Amino acid sequence: MTLTWFNSFDRLFVPLLKEVPKHAVAHSHQLLLRGGYIWQAGSGLYALLPMANRVVQRLQSLVRAELNAIGSQECVLPAITDKHLWQQSGRWQEAGDELFRLEDRKGAAYCLAATHEETVTALVSSLVSSHRSLPLYLYQMQPKYRDEMRPRYGLLRCREFMMKDMYTFDSSEQDARATYAKVVECYQRILQRLGVPFAKVQADTGLIGGSLSHEFQIKAEIGEDELIFCDTCNQAANIEKIDGLIDACPHASPSPSTSPRPPSASCSWTTSKGIEVGHAFLLGTKYSTVFDAAFLDADSQRQDIHMGCYGLGLTRMLSAVAEAQHDAEGLIWPIAMAPFVVSIASVGRMNTFKDEKCRALYEVLNSRPELSDLIVLDTRDMSPRHKLANSRMVGIPFTVLVGDWFDSEHLEVYARTSHDKQDMSVEEFVSLLSSPALHNTSQIGYA
Amino acid sequence: MTLTWFNSFDRLFVPLLKEVPKHAVAHSHQLLLRGGYIWQAGSGLYALLPMANRVVQRLQSLVRAELNAIGSQECVLPAITDKHLWQQSGRWQEAGDELFRLEDRKGAAYCLAATHEETVTALVSSLVSSHRSLPLYLYQMQPKYRDEMRPRYGLLRCREFMMKDMYTFDSSEQDARATYAKVVECYQRILQRLGVPFAKVQADTGLIGGSLSHEFQIKAEIGEDELIFCDTCNQAANIEKIDGLIDACPHASPSPSTSPRPPSASCSWTTSKGIEVGHAFLLGTKYSTVFDAAFLDADSQRQDIHMGCYGLGLTRMLSAVAEAQHDAEGLIWPIAMAPFVVSIASVGRMNTFKDEKCRALYEVLNSRPELSDLIVLDTRDMSPRHKLANSRMVGIPFTVLVGDWFDSEHLEVYARTSHDKQDMSVEEFVSLLSSPALHNTSQIGYA
Repeated sequence: MTLTWFNSFDRLFVPLLKEVPKHAVAHSHQLLLRGGYIWQAGSGLYALLPMANRVVQRLQSLVRAELNAIGSQECVLPAITDKHLWQQSGRWQEAGDELFRLEDRKGAAYCLAATHEETVTALVSSLVSSHRSLPLYLYQMQPKYRDEMRPRYGLLRCREFMMKDMYTFDSSEQDARATYAKVVECYQRILQRLGVPFAKVQADTGLIGGSLSHEFQIKAEIGEDELIFCDTCNQAANIEKIDGLIDACPHASPSPSTSPRPPSASCSWTTSKGIEVGHAFLLGTKYSTVFDAAFLDADSQRQDIHMGCYGLGLTRMLSAVAEAQHDAEGLIWPIAMAPFVVSIASVGRMNTFKDEKCRALYEVLNSRPELSDLIVLDTRDMSPRHKLANSRMVGIPFTVLVGDWFDSEHLEVYARTSHDKQDMSVEEFVSLLSSPALHNTSQIGYA
Repeated sequence: MTLTWFNSFDRLFVPLLKEVPKHAVAHSHQLLLRGGYIWQAGSGLYALLPMANRVVQRLQSLVRAELNAIGSQECVLPAITDKHLWQQSGRWQEAGDELFRLEDRKGAAYCLAATHEETVTALVSSLVSSHRSLPLYLYQMQPKYRDEMRPRYGLLRCREFMMKDMYTFDSSEQDARATYAKVVECYQRILQRLGVPFAKVQADTGLIGGSLSHEFQIKAEIGEDELIFCDTCNQAANIEKIDGLIDACPHASPSPSTSPRPPSASCSWTTSKGIEVGHAFLLGTKYSTVFDAAFLDADSQRQDIHMGCYGLGLTRMLSAVAEAQHDAEGLIWPIAMAPFVVSIASVGRMNTFKDEKCRALYEVLNSRPELSDLIVLDTRDMSPRHKLANSRMVGIPFTVLVGDWFDSEHLEVYARTSHDKQDMSVEEFVSLLSSPALHNTSQIGYA
């Protein structure tokens, strides 16, 4: 199929706002509103406009690829969930006011699932009976619901949000622990590919329950948790739980210490606040015993299934990354999340020469599989200064100016992270855009 | 990235059922349960297991590509919708018991959106002010909710379902009519690419309102509408509205007639029942006047925006296509919707030779962009007869048997639509799988 459709700012719906409401106090909230990414439909309820939808879909693709690579399978579970399921687990009571509840026309009671342990365990109980079906890793990427007391900070704490939740089913505690290690490693790979500063933090198990739990935190000053990070190994601990970091971080001195200072000269601990974007729980048989999720082992003995659950807040990650990476000019997306990677902006009144050069460059870049659908034209009747400022505000990593002087050996490239113009050939630009270092895949064993 | 992950029936979660519940009377419902595609979580509430999720995602990709090609942009709108929005349009009352309603912890009232005219018009009212932002086509692919009195037939009539809904905004009635024609043509292209018998039917405007409306129906005996189809031009009419077909079908004789018989010898009208899978409405200014969605034209005059809305029931299409295409052995997916296009099945005990040949064939096929992630290995310890029967039950279009006799010049290929073995080389097979005719893109102007 030849290219019949160009992404172009002429037609894209990116309604930039000059003023944002006063209640938008978080930088990420202000920038996502100003940049035409989100629209508030109600308290804690947001529409994702086309630019935010692109970022979420890029996140979904990246997460899907990494989860599939460890043998996970995607499914869809209903949001409307029978009260009886949540009564069986005891969470119908426990969840209190945070659960949205409703009745159907016949008076039957339901909740909008905040999480799907009950549903997926009932499903597995009904469909799995043999050890040959295990291990089984099922995940979903769907809206979930929580009736927050104080929704705030835009997508950081809202009432309808896009989650990736994975539920794992193993035939023994040992296998479930191996799965836990595999998924935690997978989460680290996902966050490394995003290229934002994050840490793995030992955590409490809370309402979900279980015996082992980690959080994944993105460093940002608006975060609710005060953490100590080791920048060398991406480990961290809550400031009240410094022992956890000393156990986990190879850069700590061997003797336990309760001081929040680096225990050895070779390590680089810093304190920061963090935003939780992911959570891993080893659940054991907490839910499988309730819903009778069991299997016959190779000796035809009945055994309970061992579970884990693993969440990633996809819309929350948008805001968390926007908190972690921005400046006075606007958003700064990592390559792996950017709605577009390159904007090609014409300078001065359009003519045949510039039109041809813009489109030719678009096709060269867009034909690279890793850049497909990630290039956008900006041929609006607007000054180059204004176009660059727009591009920097919405956080596009690279902008190329195309004027009458255009020469494919000497592109004018502006990176979002610098103010200097870079001079390079089309070939050099393509090779820069395709380099593993830029996509953060160089250091983590991608073939 | 080299291939590290193979799709394989060894690991895929495809829980085949031998017996289906008695209340599952529709063929599609029985087959989707038997084939391990869906699991019932409650009345009118279904989980999409990995195979159904694959079919829905393929549908989504196809629909997304066609909608983007006419300049549409994807967004996400919240399901939880403020009562006041629906009161403004009058539908809070009109929708009656079909609307799921709920209250939050503070007692504020909401519904779960069955459709998003109110939300998207309020959004456009708030973010669009100039003719330069028009036309604007916004679409979403999300779960929607309807509290059906009698949920039945699996995904055909359920209470939580995946919809593609598009809302279009134009600056004049004339432009809105041109948009209407463009989207209706786009829908026809989508259904042609699926390769299932369908028809465009003039329809009532009902609760949504507006001045012009068409339905898209897939022919199936379980459908609720009795239709007369012209098989030559894919037009159809409700049997009570034969005049509509006579107006629309170029194969009708020019003189109006109320007889349900073909009015001319050259046409081929047949009667059949149909399942509605798509609906188009020209809305005019019905919603824009309510929500004050207006713009300033080139002369700075304030004008109401002209709207259209266009639905496609994505999960419903799964069931509709399964109704339209199946036989006693199971499902028959069109290439464009199949969860996998080719199953590569080993014959007899696995050995190094067969393992190598299976994987090599997998890589050759999977490396074609149009077949990427659509190939599956079947190396289970099971008779070839059993593997073929499984493959036919879940509806995979082609199965290749790989035994010790394997010869890349003479593959053993079994098509789902025939019982005969076909003998062809790998090269011929690849060329068959990539032919535009098989993907139904040959006759509809794809470059």
